[in-house]
Amino acid sequence: MFNLAMSEEARPLLDAVKKHIKVNVAPITEEFYALNEEKEDRWSWHPRQLELLDGAKAKAKESGLWNFFLPDAETGEGLNNLDYAYIAAELGKCSLASETLNCSAPDTGNMEVLERVGTPEQKEKWLKPLLNGEIRSAYAMTEPGEASSDAKNISTTAYLENGEWVINGEKYYISGAGDPRCKIMITMVKTSPDAPPSKQQSQILVPIDTPGVKILEGMQVFGEDHAPRGHMHIKFDNVRVPEENMLLGEGRGFEISQVRLGPGRIHHCMRSLGQAELALELMVQRAGSREAFGKTILKLGKNLEVISRARIEMNAMRLMVLQAAKAMDVLGNREARVYVSAVKAMVPEKVCQIIDQAIQMHGATGISQWSPLASMYTHQRHLRFADGPDEVHHMVVGRAEAQKHGVW
Amino acid sequence: MFNLAMSEEARPLLDAVKKHIKVNVAPITEEFYALNEEKEDRWSWHPRQLELLDGAKAKAKESGLWNFFLPDAETGEGLNNLDYAYIAAELGKCSLASETLNCSAPDTGNMEVLERVGTPEQKEKWLKPLLNGEIRSAYAMTEPGEASSDAKNISTTAYLENGEWVINGEKYYISGAGDPRCKIMITMVKTSPDAPPSKQQSQILVPIDTPGVKILEGMQVFGEDHAPRGHMHIKFDNVRVPEENMLLGEGRGFEISQVRLGPGRIHHCMRSLGQAELALELMVQRAGSREAFGKTILKLGKNLEVISRARIEMNAMRLMVLQAAKAMDVLGNREARVYVSAVKAMVPEKVCQIIDQAIQMHGATGISQWSPLASMYTHQRHLRFADGPDEVHHMVVGRAEAQKHGVW
Amino acid sequence: MFNLAMSEEARPLLDAVKKHIKVNVAPITEEFYALNEEKEDRWSWHPRQLELLDGAKAKAKESGLWNFFLPDAETGEGLNNLDYAYIAAELGKCSLASETLNCSAPDTGNMEVLERVGTPEQKEKWLKPLLNGEIRSAYAMTEPGEASSDAKNISTTAYLENGEWVINGEKYYISGAGDPRCKIMITMVKTSPDAPPSKQQSQILVPIDTPGVKILEGMQVFGEDHAPRGHMHIKFDNVRVPEENMLLGEGRGFEISQVRLGPGRIHHCMRSLGQAELALELMVQRAGSREAFGKTILKLGKNLEVISRARIEMNAMRLMVLQAAKAMDVLGNREARVYVSAVKAMVPEKVCQIIDQAIQMHGATGISQWSPLASMYTHQRHLRFADGPDEVHHMVVGRAEAQKHGVW
Amino acid sequence: MFNLAMSEEARPLLDAVKKHIKVNVAPITEEFYALNEEKEDRWSWHPRQLELLDGAKAKAKESGLWNFFLPDAETGEGLNNLDYAYIAAELGKCSLASETLNCSAPDTGNMEVLERVGTPEQKEKWLKPLLNGEIRSAYAMTEPGEASSDAKNISTTAYLENGEWVINGEKYYISGAGDPRCKIMITMVKTSPDAPPSKQQSQILVPIDTPGVKILEGMQVFGEDHAPRGHMHIKFDNVRVPEENMLLGEGRGFEISQVRLGPGRIHHCMRSLGQAELALELMVQRAGSREAFGKTILKLGKNLEVISRARIEMNAMRLMVLQAAKAMDVLGNREARVYVSAVKAMVPEKVCQIIDQAIQMHGATGISQWSPLASMYTHQRHLRFADGPDEVHHMVVGRAEAQKHGVW
Repeated sequence: MFNLAMSEEARPLLDAVKKHIKVNVAPITEEFYALNEEKEDRWSWHPRQLELLDGAKAKAKESGLWNFFLPDAETGEGLNNLDYAYIAAELGKCSLASETLNCSAPDTGNMEVLERVGTPEQKEKWLKPLLNGEIRSAYAMTEPGEASSDAKNISTTAYLENGEWVINGEKYYISGAGDPRCKIMITMVKTSPDAPPSKQQSQILVPIDTPGVKILEGMQVFGEDHAPRGHMHIKFDNVRVPEENMLLGEGRGFEISQVRLGPGRIHHCMRSLGQAELALELMVQRAGSREAFGKTILKLGKNLEVISRARIEMNAMRLMVLQAAKAMDVLGNREARVYVSAVKAMVPEKVCQIIDQAIQMHGATGISQWSPLASMYTHQRHLRFADGPDEVHHMVVGRAEAQKHGVW
Repeated sequence: MFNLAMSEEARPLLDAVKKHIKVNVAPITEEFYALNEEKEDRWSWHPRQLELLDGAKAKAKESGLWNFFLPDAETGEGLNNLDYAYIAAELGKCSLASETLNCSAPDTGNMEVLERVGTPEQKEKWLKPLLNGEIRSAYAMTEPGEASSDAKNISTTAYLENGEWVINGEKYYISGAGDPRCKIMITMVKTSPDAPPSKQQSQILVPIDTPGVKILEGMQVFGEDHAPRGHMHIKFDNVRVPEENMLLGEGRGFEISQVRLGPGRIHHCMRSLGQAELALELMVQRAGSREAFGKTILKLGKNLEVISRARIEMNAMRLMVLQAAKAMDVLGNREARVYVSAVKAMVPEKVCQIIDQAIQMHGATGISQWSPLASMYTHQRHLRFADGPDEVHHMVVGRAEAQKHGVW
Repeated sequence: MFNLAMSEEARPLLDAVKKHIKVNVAPITEEFYALNEEKEDRWSWHPRQLELLDGAKAKAKESGLWNFFLPDAETGEGLNNLDYAYIAAELGKCSLASETLNCSAPDTGNMEVLERVGTPEQKEKWLKPLLNGEIRSAYAMTEPGEASSDAKNISTTAYLENGEWVINGEKYYISGAGDPRCKIMITMVKTSPDAPPSKQQSQILVPIDTPGVKILEGMQVFGEDHAPRGHMHIKFDNVRVPEENMLLGEGRGFEISQVRLGPGRIHHCMRSLGQAELALELMVQRAGSREAFGKTILKLGKNLEVISRARIEMNAMRLMVLQAAKAMDVLGNREARVYVSAVKAMVPEKVCQIIDQAIQMHGATGISQWSPLASMYTHQRHLRFADGPDEVHHMVVGRAEAQKHGVW
Repeated sequence: MFNLAMSEEARPLLDAVKKHIKVNVAPITEEFYALNEEKEDRWSWHPRQLELLDGAKAKAKESGLWNFFLPDAETGEGLNNLDYAYIAAELGKCSLASETLNCSAPDTGNMEVLERVGTPEQKEKWLKPLLNGEIRSAYAMTEPGEASSDAKNISTTAYLENGEWVINGEKYYISGAGDPRCKIMITMVKTSPDAPPSKQQSQILVPIDTPGVKILEGMQVFGEDHAPRGHMHIKFDNVRVPEENMLLGEGRGFEISQVRLGPGRIHHCMRSLGQAELALELMVQRAGSREAFGKTILKLGKNLEVISRARIEMNAMRLMVLQAAKAMDVLGNREARVYVSAVKAMVPEKVCQIIDQAIQMHGATGISQWSPLASMYTHQRHLRFADGPDEVHHMVVGRAEAQKHGVW
């Protein structure tokens, strides 16, 4: 649990990823985003955008830089969580990189679930095109009418009728569901209201073009809707899917969640640390280049201590995330969940603070369109509830501590 | 300095303002903002918007609810700072209210400066229409290329040539300069580079339609440009204005700032407290109405303590702002500047935290378009640099403390 | 509620108190404490100590500076809470001052209770000598075996037998009970275990020399026992007191607490602010007089901001405490309890932080016998549980906020 | 730098140390401390105390558990810093343990210095008996009249006269100098006032019985003097030592410091983490066993989150300290100094907070003689200036970050 070094075998892959980003991804980034302004429909991709993306994906796949996220996969492409964590940190520095390696959320979690619990038919139909990067997917869990800090709070219902699940309810902040390439949603529903609280939920595969799936609007994150991927508000209005779309079995939705959430949270955290590194870099450069009262801002007041504390916290967080990844490798996702909750509770909160301090050291430029800091902040702020609010993860960690002493 | 009660004379005015907001302003708010979607040019007003606004202004003026912000004015309309602070808190709860009483920033500060230091000609030309609410104005100080925490950092130059000041430089985040009704900018320039550092700056009246004034773009606050008022990025390219547009005298720009900034900061802080009250209200209502783990969120974990701390801090801040207003009344703006810096350093930082906690208690809804919290947050965050970053105000307060003991 | 100025009538008293401290108290302080080293029994007073103290008390009484703490008393000596708060701040700067004016805790609270709810006989026997400063008293509430954050947690029992209450249990941290002059304890007991939770407790007068009252040891505050006053651990072993020693009536112990606790907490808070002023003064002087890296420590790093934040918080706390005092005057102790809890939760926590920062700015001297800061810190730290831990006061404030919105 | 696991070779030693503590140290601890009450002179050891200690030392030495602290020593006894860090954590749980393994501060640092830079004669005379555990030593650096945050601030002077260094000045908080077994002090003096600032200081060996060495008093830590080891205030009054007592060479005092300070700080930090583990354990047990408002304190308010945050911070700190130890092994003490400063700035501050929270969860018992928490707190608080205040270590880390970007 304390050897957090990358394995020798994985090192060449890390180098290859760095090279891939430099050669194949970085050069297309500017053009890719500029095309956003030229699209007629904000909720579509420009054909040239997809061409650029597919080109980079093809190159990555050729070089064997593909589907790293899936440890112990039959396909053999996956890395263990610790090695992948090092690569995820690299991916965090370049916004298009993950997708070119087929390592984007929420596909990664969805593929892991399908790989672990899917039937052969489910795998053939959905896992295969996902692993090939041909389609994308969404994970429909959060609901507008419920406090989702309690994962048992699910109002969306599904009942079986004539060999079909009939689904009714509303979901929101369904990330990626606006993407025209998104074809399938793993959807959390309540199927068994009379079962014990943690056996009432199920996860069902819902093709996004099923009649009754109504995308109402894109939810915003501090005013941004991140079209065309988006964070969609979706109504399920008598949506009918075949009985065999159930994953693992009725009432086993919770069980699946425990498989799912570990790796995704680790990847988020590593990417957050990449953002923190960028924020610190911008903060130091700004503070070192602007002058006030006859010296650089770096030498004024508490600024150097702010920078020191950011560096210290970031190093500490990195070690914690690596250890959580190691714990998943050594103990399995279920047993490692306290480690994962610890970093999920720790990282986005502190990274928000670091970006906020970088903003303060930039003055108004920090919240303007001239700096990436404002959108970095709002994205990190969002992560403090995505996959469970900080408070719930602290509950997991605190309770585990109490259990050690037999007082819970 | 400890009697912070509103005066008996002002109480009826406060009641009248509340009634005015209820009867004349609240009812037009929804229509006003809906019209934003119907304008052809984002950087203009819809004629109906101006009609609504002018209607409300006429009613306020009729009822004598006008130009309260100006203490000891010849016009007799102004209130002292303490009484006005109570009214400003009320104005903070309704976004259109200030303007209907001709009490909007930055006009208030500009009018105060003109009233205090303007020549009769300057007053006739600019103060009169401002006091009448016929035009609006801007205050051009912050520059993109300088650390504006040090108010002496001014790169925009002005030199005298043939009876005209020739101005060159760039300003940004010039709030209100996008408004088509904005006609005049008080502009901070460096006129005397060889004088001692605090005598190099001057403030000059620059009509916004002067040739060479180029509005480059609207600066954003976390992605929002707040058109049509905006926060403009402006280039001064050989802008020429008559010699008599100088305010108070060459090299006296700093002196004017000290007159100006007190009241504006107090008004901001009172409005910030109005926002904090709204955030707390939303937080309590949300926490009291959502359930998780079998109880309301209010009863979970630290939430009740978060609410308690918010209430305590808000009450403390209110008393501090009232005392700073009182200090301005009793000691004058210059002597009261430590009180003013104290609240400017205290209020926006803590109000940001309170809004952030309200967001956390809302989950993703808190950052969505369904809640005002996200834009309340970004607005408050902006205030942590507007009129000087927190750090500079702490410097003022800390230095004053050191001076008491003779160690600065 | 916002006029927090001292009344005109009280001003001369404040001046007289300042003069009394300067003339009668300050000069005896050094000798008084030096005598601690010459006593044979740490748990006694040196005769000369009492002589000094009684001399100062006689002078105060002569000048009418006596029993200020008791508002609306029949004796007419008391001030309202707001006026007294100003005087308490003065008393906080000099450790012997309160006692010379007969304004020391816990006598003040005990006298207030006796004055409000005592029978004529109880008043004659105990209130009279207390008001005259002839004896001292204690308040026995906290128990070693119970979480005293919940005031209903009382294990000490009392039952009536042959016209006597028979008391059994343990109390600890009973401040002042080590003082040889302490003659009477107001003791919280459980008399009615079958009543509703808040009607089970009673308060009974227990003379300290009653057989069965066993003082076990002095409890320490970070290693200091503050002999001879002390914070005593006391066993009640079949202690028998007459039936008429009951205060107000069986089961009304809680009701009495609500009368009692407001003023005492306000006095503590004002004295805490006196300590904070001293800490800030020491911090600024030290920082201004020591040099490192070629400048005074004051000009290094975050130090000036630390000082600024301390000043701002202290000013804010002062206004809050004054407003809580005013609330007691205007609304009564019961209705003002949310104001009182707010300051009790706010003040000791922040004053601890300020003293801690003063320590840090002093280096090792700050925790040595050469500086008062270490014992100032430990005393303030103690106040974070005395009269209820911070957490309980936040509960009171948070709940009141929730009740405003009908969600508790 | 990321493999932080203990080496296979060291594991049996860790087990042996655990066994030694259990068998040889724990059983003597109670008797050892009880004897403090029976000594005539507080500043001496009771003969039986030394007998107990020497017995345990002999057993450790026999088992080869001796002088672990010295990496790469000629004697071969030392471990590398990473392996030793794991052992130091164990030593931190038992206050007598370090000394029984001859691994106590400040001897460890002094021995390392002598081993690295001592002459054969210096080693023979002082290092040998120290390595054998026959004598103890002190490190005399901090001065009462200087801000010791700046290590260049040394007022104690030494000049050469007739083949002797003549030393004059004052030092304070010289830990261990009260111990009758302390025979030698490494003393920081200013020998070369005209050299560049970092070449003015030298370190000289001063036998404590040299005429002119006057121990004035024991300095206190929050009222405790920790006799007989103590933290002594010492006057050097024309103290004369032979020229050959100079270490390494005149003006090289700073250079020696860089060798010295790394390991000692790491050991302190590992022991601090041992204290934090104890505090958390006490906090959880208390919170889980006391009830208020009908549930355990653990389930009230923010308490579970406080526990979670403590656990998370402690795990993060442990990884950081291990990495700093690893950095010393891999990069050398000099190059690893930024890692060491990072943990020195991070650990004592956060451990203080954790102990403080444990105190708060205990109520008054937490600051009483019934709990170790009060003295754990005051000890940790002291560490926030020992070996440089937090602020100086943040300066080191912040500056290193700025240097990466070429802006310092």
